[in-house]
Amino acid sequence: MSMTVGGYLVRCLEEAGLKHVFGVPGDYVLGFYDMLYRSHLKVIGTCNEMNAGYAADAYARLNGLGAVCVTYCVGGLSVLNAVAQAYAEESPLIVISGSPGLNERVRSPFLHHRVKDFDTQLKVFREVTVCTEVIEDAANAPAQIHRAIAMCRRYKRPVYIELPRDVPSLPMKTAACAKDETIVSDAKSLHEALQEASSMLRAAKSPVILAGVEMHRFGLQRLLVQLVERTGFPIAATLLGKSVISERHPQFIGIYEGGMGHERVTRKVESADCVLSLGEFMTDINLGIGTAKLDTNRIINATSARISIRYHHYEEVLLRDFMEGLLKSRLGPRRKVAPLRQPEHRAFRSQPARPICVRRFWARVNECLDENTIVICDVGDSLFGGADLEIHRRSEFLSPAYYTSMGFAVPAAVGAQINKPKLRPMVFVGDGAFQMTGQELSTVVRCGLNPIVFVLNNKGYTTERLILDGPFNDIHDWAYHRWPEIVRAGWGCEVHTEGDLEQALEKALANTQEFSIINVHIQPLDHSEALDRLGKRIHSQVARAARKRA
Amino acid sequence: MSMTVGGYLVRCLEEAGLKHVFGVPGDYVLGFYDMLYRSHLKVIGTCNEMNAGYAADAYARLNGLGAVCVTYCVGGLSVLNAVAQAYAEESPLIVISGSPGLNERVRSPFLHHRVKDFDTQLKVFREVTVCTEVIEDAANAPAQIHRAIAMCRRYKRPVYIELPRDVPSLPMKTAACAKDETIVSDAKSLHEALQEASSMLRAAKSPVILAGVEMHRFGLQRLLVQLVERTGFPIAATLLGKSVISERHPQFIGIYEGGMGHERVTRKVESADCVLSLGEFMTDINLGIGTAKLDTNRIINATSARISIRYHHYEEVLLRDFMEGLLKSRLGPRRKVAPLRQPEHRAFRSQPARPICVRRFWARVNECLDENTIVICDVGDSLFGGADLEIHRRSEFLSPAYYTSMGFAVPAAVGAQINKPKLRPMVFVGDGAFQMTGQELSTVVRCGLNPIVFVLNNKGYTTERLILDGPFNDIHDWAYHRWPEIVRAGWGCEVHTEGDLEQALEKALANTQEFSIINVHIQPLDHSEALDRLGKRIHSQVARAARKRA
Repeated sequence: MSMTVGGYLVRCLEEAGLKHVFGVPGDYVLGFYDMLYRSHLKVIGTCNEMNAGYAADAYARLNGLGAVCVTYCVGGLSVLNAVAQAYAEESPLIVISGSPGLNERVRSPFLHHRVKDFDTQLKVFREVTVCTEVIEDAANAPAQIHRAIAMCRRYKRPVYIELPRDVPSLPMKTAACAKDETIVSDAKSLHEALQEASSMLRAAKSPVILAGVEMHRFGLQRLLVQLVERTGFPIAATLLGKSVISERHPQFIGIYEGGMGHERVTRKVESADCVLSLGEFMTDINLGIGTAKLDTNRIINATSARISIRYHHYEEVLLRDFMEGLLKSRLGPRRKVAPLRQPEHRAFRSQPARPICVRRFWARVNECLDENTIVICDVGDSLFGGADLEIHRRSEFLSPAYYTSMGFAVPAAVGAQINKPKLRPMVFVGDGAFQMTGQELSTVVRCGLNPIVFVLNNKGYTTERLILDGPFNDIHDWAYHRWPEIVRAGWGCEVHTEGDLEQALEKALANTQEFSIINVHIQPLDHSEALDRLGKRIHSQVARAARKRA
Repeated sequence: MSMTVGGYLVRCLEEAGLKHVFGVPGDYVLGFYDMLYRSHLKVIGTCNEMNAGYAADAYARLNGLGAVCVTYCVGGLSVLNAVAQAYAEESPLIVISGSPGLNERVRSPFLHHRVKDFDTQLKVFREVTVCTEVIEDAANAPAQIHRAIAMCRRYKRPVYIELPRDVPSLPMKTAACAKDETIVSDAKSLHEALQEASSMLRAAKSPVILAGVEMHRFGLQRLLVQLVERTGFPIAATLLGKSVISERHPQFIGIYEGGMGHERVTRKVESADCVLSLGEFMTDINLGIGTAKLDTNRIINATSARISIRYHHYEEVLLRDFMEGLLKSRLGPRRKVAPLRQPEHRAFRSQPARPICVRRFWARVNECLDENTIVICDVGDSLFGGADLEIHRRSEFLSPAYYTSMGFAVPAAVGAQINKPKLRPMVFVGDGAFQMTGQELSTVVRCGLNPIVFVLNNKGYTTERLILDGPFNDIHDWAYHRWPEIVRAGWGCEVHTEGDLEQALEKALANTQEFSIINVHIQPLDHSEALDRLGKRIHSQVARAARKRA
């Protein structure tokens, strides 16, 4: 059977579960683009490479694998920040980049798009991926391609495959894609870790589960629900892990974020005599920027990297094996743990003439969510405010809550809805973030998607205003709602009052065949309660540094 | 005198000739932003970091030094591609990045914006700069800051200065900024190189000077004109070096770009018995993508890196010393070299009903340029077509003609006009490139600038269409002329015919208080002659690779 290196890569991507590839073409990768186009994979072109990276990252978070395909340096170095975010937040993203042909490099060292040397881009990507492979011949290509895809799936982190432009057309013999090797836990470490963890949990009087993002990334959500229900333990989620369990589950108590979160959740988690943390990094934002008070002596912290109990660590124990072991350990329920009383849900009563404020905006929007919504929050108050939305099913909340790169949300809506066409994205994005990447509404139109985009327009970087203000935090006031005129489709409006918001929601929800964009005018210093706490916390750090100066 | 590390950096930037810094603030760099704001430097905020990088690069090309200031990773990794372009094309750009405080790193390894480790960003920037300095204390800060600025000015390439956020406020004693050390040529190498070069040039019957971009970057333009006029040699410029000499100079014969350029220029340069190439890299695009026929036996190739004569090289010879030496070598004029007859200038006669085509578009626009215009061309046919515009003064043409990163032009117009407020930018940008970075019209409005932006709207990546076409080369047709509605200022219109173009030019030229944007509708495959030749050339390379496959 006749096969080329490029054709083999395409087939392996298909067999690994990809249906779409995001990117921007360029001459060093054009031959491979043609191969993609002739395959079953669909190529989604975006306005620029960074945005392709965000879209592919969102797709990867939902699909279990995503890919972005770009040209050399001008493409690769432009997508880098999105790849770094995928690394930091464990999103399995494959970066495919063209590069100058091996033959032409000899003749002409000054080929366009070159920086220092031909391996500049490769060296850069080593810093933000778990595997880099430059395919130079047909003999090694299968092993290299297989290794990259396997590493991506194993670590849920980005990998880099470089294709010099004279390589994809090289003929090769192997046609079948190799299968991933199975990785197993070290039996004795697993046994001891389980013994220790289960006796700690059995002895606990007020244990709590804290669920993190890896529950989703490693496909452990069903197991998590079993463990929660079998043990009867209350469960909180982190901000980065928000939506790994339905927020309507009776044992779900809320988002834990240290001093930034709701006091009842903070108290419940911090007063627990044993916290079983599953699949979460202890990031600064997850821990409320230093406001969390978690006693390591009471924590079992299980992640894909290792299992930590108090101050010691077990290596080579798979998170899945650990959780399955706990499930078999008969941890309960000793008695049915009463779910925390959720704050009483009061129906929102609109006051039509009242200017819209941040808190009432979120309260009203919360009522619009249903099981067909996916919430996508950009960084800043869109994230902190969005944390309180009640997510109905699993994995219907996307946000870069650790790496926090502004501009994720609009491109991510493209990637998310391409992967989950039946879900309608509700996108919350600040004006600053929208100005970074909002042009992807263009791709929204091209792909026939229908997100509702709320631009929280406070005319500046409000998160920063609370830390240290100056005119550098002001931004230009766009007529965001007029984007439909630029991209020749969609519907937009402005919201100044609660009455405007009612009308806007009604129209946007009914406008199912295209996107809607709602320009929500907010006072420059109006913000969510969580941001208030966060701002004060960071302010005190900056102030400490400033005092040194004085 | 009381001084801080941040204050010292600000003062050194001012003394080095900066008046503006471009960037986007973020919490790790906010304290330093406040210091910038309180200084004489003006901070220009852009929509995102990449665009700040392009603007600062353009500013650096015109000013001799530029700076971009961003936050850690989400900012730094986003500006990377623009910095890589500055490296490739020798633009003296200082990158200043905040980063997590040294003290907080110990307590909390999972600080937001972190990728693999705290030095990830530093390692990445080593690949695209000539100097990286992480300032960690007050004692070493002066030497580090001085080294970075000196390297930037010496090599005309980017440098990286990282400021952990607890560092700018550290007190320090030194207040005066150190001066650059003087670098001199090796006297014997210089002497021998000059002897050899001048005897080669004296013996030549039909010598030609080929001037490149370093004439501008190293401030050698006046010396170049003296050399040209003293010797009487005809002079051509490269595409990257376009405008290093006024294109109305009587000895100027045109842009040399191998088989891509005008035949009379190509013939004159390639038939010369000695080519004195001054300050140019022999890049693929400068050489017409492999179509140039230059015989190394007849070339004296002098750059900032070294002087090459035929197949041997002189190191440690400064370009300025070499040129000054040639000026004293009495090379001519033996006889007044008659300038090549320029193609007769025929006044453009508009045919109002005729659909606009690429060639006639450029011919008409050429008549609008005057000594108050700066031309900024994006990559693709905007560059290849723009190559034929006649630039009136020196350094009034900006384009990334080697690294060729799409999306440079609109942000570059911001940086250029901030530096040269009396020049009005005429910006030529394809629809694909505009979609990447066009939102900087927002910054144009904020800063009160008045560029005229021509969007050459052929509904796709036409350069690539000529290489290998597929639906991946199509892009969405925006109503580019309606951007004034988004940013609440400016004037826009559409051009379908030559009559439309006349009206558009008249209005735009009269509209001096704000920007104008002209949406020029072009047939998808219509293109300049140069692009025709380039496309065919690259097509044959791709075809060669494809034949291997068959």
